[in-house]
Amino acid sequence: MKHFFNEQPKDPNRRAFMAATAVGSAALAGGALVTPAAADATQERPNPLLVSTDDIDIAALPRMQQKLVAPPHAPEHTQVAEGGPKVIEVEMTIIEKKVEIDHDGTTIWAFTYDGTVPGPLIVCHQGDYIELTLKSHPDNELEHNIDFHAATGALGGAALTYVQPGEKVVLRFRALKAGTFTYHCAPGGQMIPYHVVHGMNGAVMVLPRDGLKDKHGEPIRYDRLYYIGEQDYYIPKDDAGQYKHYDSALEDFTDSLKAMRTLTPTHVVFNGAEGALAGDNAMTAKVGETVLFVHNQANRDSRPHLIGGHGDYVWETGGFEDDPAIGIETWFIRGGSAGVAIYTFVQPGIYAYVTHNLIEAVLLGAVGHVKVEGEWDDKVMKQVLAPTAM
Amino acid sequence: MKHFFNEQPKDPNRRAFMAATAVGSAALAGGALVTPAAADATQERPNPLLVSTDDIDIAALPRMQQKLVAPPHAPEHTQVAEGGPKVIEVEMTIIEKKVEIDHDGTTIWAFTYDGTVPGPLIVCHQGDYIELTLKSHPDNELEHNIDFHAATGALGGAALTYVQPGEKVVLRFRALKAGTFTYHCAPGGQMIPYHVVHGMNGAVMVLPRDGLKDKHGEPIRYDRLYYIGEQDYYIPKDDAGQYKHYDSALEDFTDSLKAMRTLTPTHVVFNGAEGALAGDNAMTAKVGETVLFVHNQANRDSRPHLIGGHGDYVWETGGFEDDPAIGIETWFIRGGSAGVAIYTFVQPGIYAYVTHNLIEAVLLGAVGHVKVEGEWDDKVMKQVLAPTAM
Amino acid sequence: MKHFFNEQPKDPNRRAFMAATAVGSAALAGGALVTPAAADATQERPNPLLVSTDDIDIAALPRMQQKLVAPPHAPEHTQVAEGGPKVIEVEMTIIEKKVEIDHDGTTIWAFTYDGTVPGPLIVCHQGDYIELTLKSHPDNELEHNIDFHAATGALGGAALTYVQPGEKVVLRFRALKAGTFTYHCAPGGQMIPYHVVHGMNGAVMVLPRDGLKDKHGEPIRYDRLYYIGEQDYYIPKDDAGQYKHYDSALEDFTDSLKAMRTLTPTHVVFNGAEGALAGDNAMTAKVGETVLFVHNQANRDSRPHLIGGHGDYVWETGGFEDDPAIGIETWFIRGGSAGVAIYTFVQPGIYAYVTHNLIEAVLLGAVGHVKVEGEWDDKVMKQVLAPTAM
Repeated sequence: MKHFFNEQPKDPNRRAFMAATAVGSAALAGGALVTPAAADATQERPNPLLVSTDDIDIAALPRMQQKLVAPPHAPEHTQVAEGGPKVIEVEMTIIEKKVEIDHDGTTIWAFTYDGTVPGPLIVCHQGDYIELTLKSHPDNELEHNIDFHAATGALGGAALTYVQPGEKVVLRFRALKAGTFTYHCAPGGQMIPYHVVHGMNGAVMVLPRDGLKDKHGEPIRYDRLYYIGEQDYYIPKDDAGQYKHYDSALEDFTDSLKAMRTLTPTHVVFNGAEGALAGDNAMTAKVGETVLFVHNQANRDSRPHLIGGHGDYVWETGGFEDDPAIGIETWFIRGGSAGVAIYTFVQPGIYAYVTHNLIEAVLLGAVGHVKVEGEWDDKVMKQVLAPTAM
Repeated sequence: MKHFFNEQPKDPNRRAFMAATAVGSAALAGGALVTPAAADATQERPNPLLVSTDDIDIAALPRMQQKLVAPPHAPEHTQVAEGGPKVIEVEMTIIEKKVEIDHDGTTIWAFTYDGTVPGPLIVCHQGDYIELTLKSHPDNELEHNIDFHAATGALGGAALTYVQPGEKVVLRFRALKAGTFTYHCAPGGQMIPYHVVHGMNGAVMVLPRDGLKDKHGEPIRYDRLYYIGEQDYYIPKDDAGQYKHYDSALEDFTDSLKAMRTLTPTHVVFNGAEGALAGDNAMTAKVGETVLFVHNQANRDSRPHLIGGHGDYVWETGGFEDDPAIGIETWFIRGGSAGVAIYTFVQPGIYAYVTHNLIEAVLLGAVGHVKVEGEWDDKVMKQVLAPTAM
Repeated sequence: MKHFFNEQPKDPNRRAFMAATAVGSAALAGGALVTPAAADATQERPNPLLVSTDDIDIAALPRMQQKLVAPPHAPEHTQVAEGGPKVIEVEMTIIEKKVEIDHDGTTIWAFTYDGTVPGPLIVCHQGDYIELTLKSHPDNELEHNIDFHAATGALGGAALTYVQPGEKVVLRFRALKAGTFTYHCAPGGQMIPYHVVHGMNGAVMVLPRDGLKDKHGEPIRYDRLYYIGEQDYYIPKDDAGQYKHYDSALEDFTDSLKAMRTLTPTHVVFNGAEGALAGDNAMTAKVGETVLFVHNQANRDSRPHLIGGHGDYVWETGGFEDDPAIGIETWFIRGGSAGVAIYTFVQPGIYAYVTHNLIEAVLLGAVGHVKVEGEWDDKVMKQVLAPTAM
């Protein structure tokens, strides 16, 4: 039994997926059961979760440009929306490029939005429109597109954003749900996971219009924001067990699919490469500052943990309409989602930000650092007796 | 150290597990610590979560038959209970059969409840009784039983429902907890995972008597219900790397256990086979309709995602007494559980329903489709500029 | 790119990690974006989650000794705090020892706190101080330390607790967050996961001062507490596929790292060895008793399930300030965390406590039992018809 989503494009560059979506409209599965609702069912009431679009005149909305920046940073934004809905214009260029991903010089032909893994963070408020101009660099070899989990319909916009090298496309969608959401390339068939595990993913943060709140409705604000993209790579090995290097994009296609089927990544890293957020590249903060961490994982489960700290407020699923978890040690990012943890630092020093499968953290690369300046508080922790012979 | 749960039955058909449960009653671990409660502990109060059985006269309860139907459909039911507790009579027949599970013709001897993977969905309301007549087809080769996660005691009924080929058994249990719950075969020792990963599992939905509610207590109702069973298969390969075919049930036992120990499935599919809910077999809906999706995974974690849509209300754990998550992109089904997502469609077109480890979705098979009819709303999404050369 | 957390110590016994934390203080990543807060942001208000330390005079606090006990038991404690914050003195001795982990006699050189896998449970109330005297047995070969997820700063105390064989150290920290929290050895680089998957982990339970509560604020109390540590082992095999035995600690280092990189454990067990909580070692309870289960998994995700029972109240993440989930079948423990489920037994008999990936449970070892005494209630479950020929 073959169907388009699983079908491997014979020519991976053709617009197989779009064409395929037009297939089968006359051949639906019959008999989908309409379950009888009880007499008191309130079928008529509007969906309370839906941001109304009825009285919106898009042409009349204010427009602003959001300049995207490289991770782990966020574009300038206000935490509480100023005024009503806007159209937020953003632009990203797809760039295929060979990058080093670990200290041994292992390489991958990364597929990137704007040249970084993950792609840049986009920030808006619930009810705003995001209007993306998506360009594919003329030097690219492959067809690409973008599926926004923050968007509604057309496979998250994937069906409307196919670009060949040298092309551009413009997509506008309304952010109906508040939360953090993954985006990723989804060109159809085996190309979907292939592109995603080559780095082609990022996140959108849709803030509630009145900002983040705790379960009592009290505002939660942050002083800094860091945006961590966790990437699982599946680098093929040669017969001698050495990681293979390739001369061009797509040359690793067959090898990669075989490696991916093991479901066992060779590398799990933050922001594209081992050490990209560690050591001299550490994130920074000060005692007393409140930091929001966005954690994006487009393909595989993760369990972020801040060694030496906690999540004061955590939206694991990224859903900002839910009550945040309070004061937890480790949170869980479902593969294909982005979540948020907020922490106010109370002690200075080095913190390690990891996924707390410690094998993945230490052996596969998923370690970042937060360097925090300030005064040590002995009332929180004290080495009462230094190591001493018994 | 050996004990019955891990012990491999010498004869996989014998009633090893039941016998074993009678062992060891006089040899308990001593010293289980009774932790002192503080003076204000309210040990005497009844458990508020327990549906009282004290004043029930089962013989006097009304009885109704629920005709089970093949997935992805649900039996007829009301969303709000009419009247008090009932005894709901259901019947299932265990059938061992060889089935194709992918487009390459790979086969497995599936162990099924009622001939389908997953077994049929059973629906009741909290406080109702489910009275199951479980039959094993005379052509079967193995001993089977059923462990209902919705039930309480006797290993979920597993200890009371062993049937040999040609036998039947009747079990009645009260649905004390509201939620969606896995059921599966659990004949003892290595036979437990072996049967489960051969397809022998399904789900029970126990609705609150007054129906589903949001966190404010407002009713949530659905127009359609789809029931997705995600199945992980571990198909053995021959020396040439080709999937092996077997002539009878149990012939793959040794090979299967070896493949299972890798914890890496060769196939992850919905409703028994790749494509069973995709393409011409797509689920259907209309713009404005509210659809409830039950997702069952009896053995392995999953992370359902509706490409192009969301979960408006999600009970990840299946527990209907908890507040549903709101407006999230991807939800998490713990291995050995069933959960629920509800979504009101606002755009027409094809949606893909996947587990969002995209390798599992596309390469291993976990893709379904929802085909939604209706009018496209440009205010939600618009392709402002079609792909154009820069 | 090398950095200390991923760097393999040339001499695994040296204090590489502590030294490393002093590196790089002058070379922070520039440009950490301070996101502008909206005008209404309440930056000045104190963090409501922080237990104040301002007016604490530690020297004047009452002190008590808590005698730690072997799992699955808990030290004596009150569920509601009596009086104000205390300093709770505990002592643990690190012991390296060879142990059998399955019924085939497979062995590992376990690294243990107090001789058990997991290490002992420590119990306190939020706001209390834990003052640990940590000793390393003179017969040990390796350097060890301890990272408390319950603690704040200095990598959870890891940076302040390095002990060589024959040394002791004393660490005091305040339990700022309420919940259950993993602790584990974290001596730096590859030694971190290596020690953790050799058994060197345990849990702290920090109760709210007024005890556990449901979402309505009503008290939840327990009659018994069992403490389950789930351990993933990665035992190297020889060329014949047999598990290897080693003559001393650290001899398996290279082999182990290779096995760990597969991310596929050979064993997943409770309390150190297959069967440690099963059969004659079963946990016990009585019908009507309320049992609290702490489930610790320091490295890898798990999904506990009580076969035949439920979680009446579940804190999956361990965070006691969150509303517990109600009446669920299976709960999820994020790798690197400890969580809690509470259940009041309503039927007698054998319950199996498993991780509900049934392959991991039955083939890899993660099965325990609870033997419950009392009167069977036919109104909850009844075998209406015993197995009978059709």
